[in-house]
Amino acid sequence: MRFAELWAELEPLGRDPGTGGYRRYSWTAADSQCRDWFTHHATRLGLAVEPDRNGNLWAWWGDARAGAVATGSHLDSVPDGGGYDGALGVASALAAVAELKDKNFNPERAAVIAVLTEEEGARFRVPCLGTRLMTGAISGEDARALTDDDGTTLAQAMAAAGADPDQLGPDDDLLGRIAMFVELHVEQGRALEPLGVPVGVGDGIWPHGRWRLDFTGRADHAGTARLEDRHDPMLPCAQTALAAREQAAAHGAVATMSKVIAEPGGTNGINSAVHAWLDARAADEETLDRTSAAVLAAAQGAAKAHGVGLTVRQESYTPLVRFDQNLRDRIVRVLSADGLSAPVLGTGAGHDAGVLAARLPTAMLFVRNPTGISHSPAEQAHLADCETGVRALAAVLADLLADGR
Amino acid sequence: MRFAELWAELEPLGRDPGTGGYRRYSWTAADSQCRDWFTHHATRLGLAVEPDRNGNLWAWWGDARAGAVATGSHLDSVPDGGGYDGALGVASALAAVAELKDKNFNPERAAVIAVLTEEEGARFRVPCLGTRLMTGAISGEDARALTDDDGTTLAQAMAAAGADPDQLGPDDDLLGRIAMFVELHVEQGRALEPLGVPVGVGDGIWPHGRWRLDFTGRADHAGTARLEDRHDPMLPCAQTALAAREQAAAHGAVATMSKVIAEPGGTNGINSAVHAWLDARAADEETLDRTSAAVLAAAQGAAKAHGVGLTVRQESYTPLVRFDQNLRDRIVRVLSADGLSAPVLGTGAGHDAGVLAARLPTAMLFVRNPTGISHSPAEQAHLADCETGVRALAAVLADLLADGR
Repeated sequence: MRFAELWAELEPLGRDPGTGGYRRYSWTAADSQCRDWFTHHATRLGLAVEPDRNGNLWAWWGDARAGAVATGSHLDSVPDGGGYDGALGVASALAAVAELKDKNFNPERAAVIAVLTEEEGARFRVPCLGTRLMTGAISGEDARALTDDDGTTLAQAMAAAGADPDQLGPDDDLLGRIAMFVELHVEQGRALEPLGVPVGVGDGIWPHGRWRLDFTGRADHAGTARLEDRHDPMLPCAQTALAAREQAAAHGAVATMSKVIAEPGGTNGINSAVHAWLDARAADEETLDRTSAAVLAAAQGAAKAHGVGLTVRQESYTPLVRFDQNLRDRIVRVLSADGLSAPVLGTGAGHDAGVLAARLPTAMLFVRNPTGISHSPAEQAHLADCETGVRALAAVLADLLADGR
Repeated sequence: MRFAELWAELEPLGRDPGTGGYRRYSWTAADSQCRDWFTHHATRLGLAVEPDRNGNLWAWWGDARAGAVATGSHLDSVPDGGGYDGALGVASALAAVAELKDKNFNPERAAVIAVLTEEEGARFRVPCLGTRLMTGAISGEDARALTDDDGTTLAQAMAAAGADPDQLGPDDDLLGRIAMFVELHVEQGRALEPLGVPVGVGDGIWPHGRWRLDFTGRADHAGTARLEDRHDPMLPCAQTALAAREQAAAHGAVATMSKVIAEPGGTNGINSAVHAWLDARAADEETLDRTSAAVLAAAQGAAKAHGVGLTVRQESYTPLVRFDQNLRDRIVRVLSADGLSAPVLGTGAGHDAGVLAARLPTAMLFVRNPTGISHSPAEQAHLADCETGVRALAAVLADLLADGR
C-alpha cells in the first residue's frame, strides 16, 4: 500500500467544498469517516485495531503486552484547517508499517499506530484531549462535562457516536504497554524550506496558554443610547485584541485573539456580552507568563474604563516540553545513516507527543511545509516530501523495533 | 377587549427562556405566532385582515377605497430585544379601536391597523423592509435575494412560511388608499421620564447609515506564524470598533460596532476573515457623513497597515426625516384637549413611519420608557403608561376619523 493511494482516499473526507478547508471535528460524521478509513487500512495491513477507553484508536502489530513502539497522530482538524495537520502522521505511519511488512521486516517487539482524539480542541476546547485523559491530566468527569458551541457535552457527543463516555479516564494499563512514542507531523512554520531539507527532528514545544474572557455589558439601542450611558462590551474586547499583539511584540512572544462571539450580535443594538479567547505562546514559561499577564491586565483596565464586567478563565496551560534527548539523538543518527540530514527544531504548536512526554520518551519528525502556513486551507506539503517522511519514519521504526526493549 | 388582556397573550410569544429577550424574526415560527395573535384579535373586533403583497398585514375597519387613517407598528424584534418595541404600537392600536367601538364611535372614514414586516432588519439586514418594498425604496428583485446568516434568501423564507415572494414590490394601490399613518411606539431613550409625562409626540428621525465591512486576511496557526508574517483581520476590525466610538464622540454622533463574525473563528488559528457592521446616526446628515467617513478612513488605514483586504458596502442610508408638521401639531392639540401635555421629541431610532413619510403625512406617539433602555430584555414600560398611550391613540384616531377627508 503506497502513501499516495492512502492519501487520495483520505483527502476528500470532511473537506468543505466552499472553503476547501477541513472540518473534521471529533465525534461527528466526518470524524467517523476518517476513523473508518483508518480501521479499514490498518486491518488490511493485518493490524488489530482496538479503541481505548478515551476514544483513541490503536492498531497493533504484534504482541502488545509491553515495550511497544508507538507512532501515529490525530485525524481531527481546526475549523477550515489544512489536510496535512495530524492526518499526515497517521497516513505516514500506515505507509511506513506497510513498507516494513513489504520488506518482510521482523520486529523484535510490538509496534502500534495511534489515532488520538480531539487533538485540536476545536470542538470541546481542550487540545490533546485524548492524551490528556489517558495520562490523567484531565479527569473523565471534567471531560464528560465539556461542551461544544451548541451546548452538546462530550458525553452526549460520544454516546451519539456509539462510544461509551463512562469509561473516560486515566489508562495506566495502556501506557504501561508503550515504551515510546514517535509522532510525524507536517511542519508548522517555515524552518526547513530555507535549509532545503525535507525532514526535521523535534526538540521541544513552546509553553502555551489559552484564556476565555467574558465581557458583560448592557444591551441597548445603537441609535438612542448616549455614548456616556453605554456599557458596550465590544470596546474593551477590541482593546484586548490590540493589546495581545502589542504585548506579544514587546515580549518576543505570540498572542492571538481569533474566536470572538458577540451576544446577541445585532446590527443596531449594543451587545449584552462579548466572549473572546486569548491564545499565547513563547519560547519559555517566564516570557509566556509575563506576556499573558500584561494582556489580561490591559483587558481588566479596558473593561473597568467602559463599566463592563470581565471574568477570565484559563482554559489550558501547557508548560515547556523537551522531548527525550536520547531518542532525539538516536533518530538523528538513524536518518543520517539513511542519507537524510535532519536538523533539530522547536515548535510553537502543541502536540500529543508533548502531553505523552510527561509519561514516556517521545520524539517528533517534521515534514517540510513550503509556505509555513498552518491551520488554513492553504497548508501545503509536497508529495515527494511526504514520501521522504514515510521513508524516514520506516527507518526510525526499523531501528527501534530491531531492539528488543 | 382591554390592553392588559391583549398584552398578556402576546408577551410570551417568541421570548427566549434563557435571556428573557425576544427573538421574533420575520418569517419564523415565532413571527407566525405573533401574526396569528393579531389576526385572531383583529377579526374578533370585526376588522377584515388582509395581507398585502409585501408580507405586511392590514386590518380594515370600514370601507377601504381611499382616505383611510392608518396606525400600527411591527411585531418583529432585534435578537434578544425587549417586548415593547413595535409590539406596543400594534397592541395599542387594537385596544384603541376596541375602545372606540365600545363607545359606539362612528367613523367618517376607514381606519386600518398595520403589522409591518422586518422593521428591525434583524434577519435580512434591511430595516423597515416591509415599508421600503411598499414605497419602492427597495425592489422586489433585490429583496428576494437578501440572505440571512444561514444563507436562506427572503424568497425561500417567505415560501417556507406559505407567502408568495413573487408578489414583492411597490404597492401604489394600497398607498393610494391611505391618507396618513400614526405610529405609537415605546420611547427609546429617556426624555419623558425627567419631564414626568407618560406620552410624547414625534418630531423627526435622525439620519442613519449602516455599513458592512469585510476584512480578509490569511488563515494561519496562532502558535507558529511569526507576528510579522501575519495578515490577521481581527486587528484592523478592533481598531475600527474603537475608531467608531472615538469619531462619534468627536462629532457629537453615535456609532456602534456590535455584529462581528470571525471566520473560521477557531481558538488557536488566525482568522481568514472578519465581517463587521457599523451603525452610525447623528442629528443631521452632514454630521453623520463626516462621522462615518472618518470611521471608514480609519478602517482602511488599519487594514492596509496589517496587509488585510477591506471591502465596505453601505447596506442602508436613511436621510433625516421630519414628520408632517400639521399632523404633529394637530395631535398635540388633541392630546392637550384630552388633558395630556405631550412634549415634541426627536429620535435616533428608525421607524416605518420614517419610511412612509416619503409618501404620506406621518406622525408618532411615544410612550415613556422609565430607564431609556432599548433593544434589550431590560426594556420597560409601565402598564399605566401603556394604558395612557392607548387612551391617547384612541383620542387621536377619534379626531382624525371624525373628519371625512
